[in-house]
Amino acid sequence: MHPLPLSATPAYRALAAHFNEVRDLQMRTMFAQEPDRFDRLSIEAAGLLLDYSKNRVNAHTMQLLRQLARERKVEERRNAMFAGEKINSTEHRAVLHTALRMPRDASLLIDGQDVVKEVHAVLDHIHAFTDRVRSGQWIGHTGKPITDIVNIGIGGSDLGPEMACRALRSFAHPRMRFHFVSNVDGHDMDAVLSQVNRETTLFIVASKTFTTRETMMNAQTARSWFLQGGNEAVLAKHFVAVSTNISAVRSFGIDPENMFPFWDWVGGRYSIWSAIGLSLALAIGFDAFSEFLAGGHAMDQHFRSAPLESNMPATLGLLGVWYRNFFGSASLSIAPYHQDLSQFPAYLQQLEMESNGKRVTMEGNSVEVATCPVVWGDVGTNGQHAYFQLLHQGTDITPVDFIAALKPAHDLAGHHAVLLANCFAQSEAFMRGKSAEEVRTEMQAQNIDAAEIAALLPHRTFPGNRPSNTILMDALTPYTLGALVALYEHKVFVQGIVWGINSFDQWGVELGKVLAKNIETELAGEPRPEMHDGSTNALIARARAANAG
Amino acid sequence: MHPLPLSATPAYRALAAHFNEVRDLQMRTMFAQEPDRFDRLSIEAAGLLLDYSKNRVNAHTMQLLRQLARERKVEERRNAMFAGEKINSTEHRAVLHTALRMPRDASLLIDGQDVVKEVHAVLDHIHAFTDRVRSGQWIGHTGKPITDIVNIGIGGSDLGPEMACRALRSFAHPRMRFHFVSNVDGHDMDAVLSQVNRETTLFIVASKTFTTRETMMNAQTARSWFLQGGNEAVLAKHFVAVSTNISAVRSFGIDPENMFPFWDWVGGRYSIWSAIGLSLALAIGFDAFSEFLAGGHAMDQHFRSAPLESNMPATLGLLGVWYRNFFGSASLSIAPYHQDLSQFPAYLQQLEMESNGKRVTMEGNSVEVATCPVVWGDVGTNGQHAYFQLLHQGTDITPVDFIAALKPAHDLAGHHAVLLANCFAQSEAFMRGKSAEEVRTEMQAQNIDAAEIAALLPHRTFPGNRPSNTILMDALTPYTLGALVALYEHKVFVQGIVWGINSFDQWGVELGKVLAKNIETELAGEPRPEMHDGSTNALIARARAANAG
Repeated sequence: MHPLPLSATPAYRALAAHFNEVRDLQMRTMFAQEPDRFDRLSIEAAGLLLDYSKNRVNAHTMQLLRQLARERKVEERRNAMFAGEKINSTEHRAVLHTALRMPRDASLLIDGQDVVKEVHAVLDHIHAFTDRVRSGQWIGHTGKPITDIVNIGIGGSDLGPEMACRALRSFAHPRMRFHFVSNVDGHDMDAVLSQVNRETTLFIVASKTFTTRETMMNAQTARSWFLQGGNEAVLAKHFVAVSTNISAVRSFGIDPENMFPFWDWVGGRYSIWSAIGLSLALAIGFDAFSEFLAGGHAMDQHFRSAPLESNMPATLGLLGVWYRNFFGSASLSIAPYHQDLSQFPAYLQQLEMESNGKRVTMEGNSVEVATCPVVWGDVGTNGQHAYFQLLHQGTDITPVDFIAALKPAHDLAGHHAVLLANCFAQSEAFMRGKSAEEVRTEMQAQNIDAAEIAALLPHRTFPGNRPSNTILMDALTPYTLGALVALYEHKVFVQGIVWGINSFDQWGVELGKVLAKNIETELAGEPRPEMHDGSTNALIARARAANAG
Repeated sequence: MHPLPLSATPAYRALAAHFNEVRDLQMRTMFAQEPDRFDRLSIEAAGLLLDYSKNRVNAHTMQLLRQLARERKVEERRNAMFAGEKINSTEHRAVLHTALRMPRDASLLIDGQDVVKEVHAVLDHIHAFTDRVRSGQWIGHTGKPITDIVNIGIGGSDLGPEMACRALRSFAHPRMRFHFVSNVDGHDMDAVLSQVNRETTLFIVASKTFTTRETMMNAQTARSWFLQGGNEAVLAKHFVAVSTNISAVRSFGIDPENMFPFWDWVGGRYSIWSAIGLSLALAIGFDAFSEFLAGGHAMDQHFRSAPLESNMPATLGLLGVWYRNFFGSASLSIAPYHQDLSQFPAYLQQLEMESNGKRVTMEGNSVEVATCPVVWGDVGTNGQHAYFQLLHQGTDITPVDFIAALKPAHDLAGHHAVLLANCFAQSEAFMRGKSAEEVRTEMQAQNIDAAEIAALLPHRTFPGNRPSNTILMDALTPYTLGALVALYEHKVFVQGIVWGINSFDQWGVELGKVLAKNIETELAGEPRPEMHDGSTNALIARARAANAG
């Protein structure tokens, strides 16, 4: 597809040369010299503001980065994605999570089918079902309304719904509690089962194929637990499925009427917008779920239509490439200054790292540059009291994405201003740092003696010039959360195209599955040491000895 | 203290030369050639097994790494720490979290005081108090026993207790629920207050100085909430403090009898062993809390006495240096295969990154090599369905620490074997990978056509040779959790000594605090644009506009 490897393209080479010129530029100086820097380096779209002015870029950097995007055909590939071309080439599939958030009056023909029509048929089903459960019309086997929803899924069938249910906690139905069981570790299911009641619990089993090992084991355990207290005839009042495997769903005991399907053009990590979002729709109601879809769609419209110069996902993606491939930053820290976004870093870990943690191009050649960084983080202000020390004074440059809502959803006085002050102050501190001279002046003003000043000066100095983005929204709502998730989805897409990789497959999860199956057999039966190395054999032996008898 | 910068020391130079010889060695080959590799490269101590045989090291590597530790005087500095010398040089303090877990019959004189005696006096106080609350003898203002504990703290006053309470969930008192509020974001406290009852809730305010901004704001909000439903006279039945500021504690309305102190030789991120562990002691009871201390102490004894060749924390620390400084790994992934250890990666983030995220040596010189990597992770098997793609097939080498317990604390059939099989299979997969030839053979056996094999081959190949440690315990108990935490504490210590930095200060948190105070004033009063850059001013203006009127 690309005639040249990335590092040999004109734009990449120009960026490499440019990097050598600007690598030592100080953001402090650039801000002093450019009164319009914020205005030039910020974008508003779909209810979000991206301030990217605290980055180590000048106007020429951005121009070259956008040139790189054009050379790599980001816009053409974007259009191909939206048009439903089979851009997931290793799996021969279209990539159409954007169709999941298209309005009812739109249409998109794929292989002769209007997928928008199919999407809205499932949405109507979700609408009717969630209305019944929320209103109390759907009752458990002893006639009581549902109080607890247990979502059983893993990966994309877990991270999206859990992240979004937490994020939109203040919009949730007051009667219902939401639980998410993903880990095959029995401690996960055990903890949830100890908190819920058979009469008022609804389990959602979310697995496209209804064969995912972890999910089906957890589902069977939930089923056994349920059957202790009732009988098979009433199981369908307490279990529904998000799946496409109708025969497996039926033989589990779930009424096929309560099976919510999705399509092979929805990747797991892009599935929150599909029936996988059922638990979210139950939590916030169908109207609010539609707002979530509308926020995602608004970001789609922006991504499709805005020129690269004012395109928020493209800009975010290109800045990531700049730090990863030129500054050598190996990770990206996500800092939501909103407690309800506590799961957003974990959500992005899958979205970014499973999409772009690849080392071969679409064509099967080695990518000659670094691809996806590690994505990690925690809510502010907590991170400030944990690992921000390293971000300020460690030896690496780690870019940070700050995310904040201007208005809170609670009425506790004073807290929100302190929260926002901390958010803005951290990006300011990363950018400006504190010079030795500033530290000295301050310590002298405090009458600290010269020897102590000399001893502490290097420890109290901050190098600064550390980059960050700030993403602001008026309030965290279904709409702005939808826009935020879609922003990062498209950012990941842009980076995948620049790197020339397929962001939509995940071959790297296969090997572990196969090996686990072997070891599972050996833990239950006879060890086969010839299949393993000495370490794995020793670990298997320990596990067998501990659980013998 | 050190005459030579780290990179100029004989051992470091020898390691650099050795690295060039061994960088391409395959672990697969080494396992094939060394039948005793697991036996040589594993250590047992304090109830833990460390299997470090799946690392890119040979016998000579380990010898050189231990030589580096000797040259950097790890053993002398370790002894100085245990002896109570003021090794936290920038703050002129001893570092004695190890004294918190010394048995009652020990003694350690610091400045003429026997700190072990002081420690056990506070432990006795904790014992008496936690017995009263757990038995129901301590009652709320309407005569009911306590059902909910809300720990208000941040950083070390939050991460340790929360991590340990979750980890030891299956040992916890069935009547009591535990909540942890840390974020100054009002959504955090708001969510907790909506779940608890004034009559049966006990708040623990954990702040050494009783001035920590976030903690005191949350404590005041909790106090106001409580006073809506009762009166000041009964406040002392519902609030206790972990602090040393007796006058501030008293004026808050807490009975000084219910103030649990600790000492300036306990750093925040090492304070779970002190009165900061009060919520843990309430959860699991004092006997189990003593077991937790005993596990930590057992690891201390091992660390003090075992030669470097069989010293678990030293080995773990040196392997980290090997990857960080020679392979250039910028992060370390923590993979607990135990749902109840879900907060352990967040706990280690603070422990490692706040301790060793430094760029100047004790003497104030620039550290010329990379120091602490980013530490991140999530429980297995969840990570497998999220970011393991990148670990297997991404462009960087990210070492992984696997942690597992051989026996579960639940009786759900089948789950635990599948969990352990996955844990062992992942380390096996990282180590061995899957060659193009293996993929081809497999695909041919499945009768896949040649063109498809050619297209998919590079995508389905795993480079392997990716390193990991596996830490096993028989079961996750207070004792083994104590040993595990102490293992990482001492690992961090060893790395700090090798890098020549002070692992016990945290000057990097100061600047943000000062800047936040300024911005807070501007959000409430008048903006002072002359103090900031254009970005920070614009963000402040947005926040003021959104919250005006």
